[in-house]
Amino acid sequence: MTFTARTPRVAAARKLQRRRDRDQTGRFLAEGPQAVREALAAGVVLELFATAEAMSRYGDLSAHFTEVDDDALASLAETVQPQGLVAVCEQVDVPLKEALAKRPRLVAVAAEIRDPGNAGTVLRTADAAGAGAVIFAGDAVDPYNGKCVRASAGSLFHVDVVRTPLDVVTPLREAGLRVLATSGYGADDLDTLADDGVLREPTAWLFGSEAHGLPDELLEAADRRVRVPIYGGAESLNLAAAAAVCLYASARAQR
Amino acid sequence: MTFTARTPRVAAARKLQRRRDRDQTGRFLAEGPQAVREALAAGVVLELFATAEAMSRYGDLSAHFTEVDDDALASLAETVQPQGLVAVCEQVDVPLKEALAKRPRLVAVAAEIRDPGNAGTVLRTADAAGAGAVIFAGDAVDPYNGKCVRASAGSLFHVDVVRTPLDVVTPLREAGLRVLATSGYGADDLDTLADDGVLREPTAWLFGSEAHGLPDELLEAADRRVRVPIYGGAESLNLAAAAAVCLYASARAQR
Repeated sequence: MTFTARTPRVAAARKLQRRRDRDQTGRFLAEGPQAVREALAAGVVLELFATAEAMSRYGDLSAHFTEVDDDALASLAETVQPQGLVAVCEQVDVPLKEALAKRPRLVAVAAEIRDPGNAGTVLRTADAAGAGAVIFAGDAVDPYNGKCVRASAGSLFHVDVVRTPLDVVTPLREAGLRVLATSGYGADDLDTLADDGVLREPTAWLFGSEAHGLPDELLEAADRRVRVPIYGGAESLNLAAAAAVCLYASARAQR
Repeated sequence: MTFTARTPRVAAARKLQRRRDRDQTGRFLAEGPQAVREALAAGVVLELFATAEAMSRYGDLSAHFTEVDDDALASLAETVQPQGLVAVCEQVDVPLKEALAKRPRLVAVAAEIRDPGNAGTVLRTADAAGAGAVIFAGDAVDPYNGKCVRASAGSLFHVDVVRTPLDVVTPLREAGLRVLATSGYGADDLDTLADDGVLREPTAWLFGSEAHGLPDELLEAADRRVRVPIYGGAESLNLAAAAAVCLYASARAQR
């Protein structure tokens, strides 16, 4: 039987495009073969909707497809080319205590970052740099927002994702992490910290939104306030670029 | 006199939202106070349209405002909040020969990058890292595309922007630059090149599109093919993050 856009299970899944329904159910949507593959590997897929064409093209993915017609798939997907696959997944985030108990040597904190593309990119970059956990702190975007899931390119399923209130500095420090806050006006510059060997220690990086930077309480609570040096005429880096430079400086120092 | 959306000078400026008209006239649009300020500093503003409100708020910017009504301003702007200012500017790119004659020690090449946001971010990041020139090579996005101008956050006016065909490796090498091509499958990893002192030399980085990477002819012509090391589960970095890591590795090595 092929489900349509009006079939109740499809309609219920479609509601997961809204944050309220994601929060209430503890579920979210992942679309496209890459994200679906990662979600299956993580064991969090509850239902996998696929068009007939996608079922034959990605037959290796699952024995448990729910076949939907093109309109139903389009109603579930948020991109123009979802490649015929949308999965309903269980949310994967873990409590802060659980993530820190593993003693990660590199952690990224997205503090009040509201742009889902930026947050997803920070998640992907932190994963690439070898971070063990990525923390969405305070009034940050929902990590299960469709655009964030897509920008993370699967990294949502690779690292410990944590959602916490804003006051994360104390537990991070108690877990043996040096807490470095990024700021265009920071007293320490990244190159000097690298030269001095500071970045070899277990580190948690705090990143704020592009428009507002980090909240004062986090800037003050952190161990250091660090600026990425600007060698040319630009006023600043964008968030994704600054996060990449900081996280990779740590990854290189910790090799 | 307040111009409206139908005033011929406003209508003529509005056409610059299209590439064909930008190419034919050698002009482009810059919107918002930051970009307009940088364009004025660069001496390339031909006409500055402003609402009455913006004229009083940004009175320091110019003695030569052309007053337009809100509809006219909205018709010229591509963002929801243009803050009342749109400038018609002369295009600023220079010939490759002129840029290389200055013997820049760091150059970024955006090769066939078609996404304007990505291209603008590479331009901004290259500027921040101290690059002297950014080259748009082959079938790359128009650097004067509105989204690219905005993503560059003024850097379009700080570095030498060059537009060239794809075969840039020979002139770069003749200008004393080591040519490094980025590739997820590169034989050299970035950390090893940094350890070996290779990055201290004058360097041109080649970046390809996120979807397709660099064209084979550039990968083959380059001196080295370099991968950014991946320490975690991510398959790759996005373009902006990879460019930031590579350009800042060079900036740090060249200090």
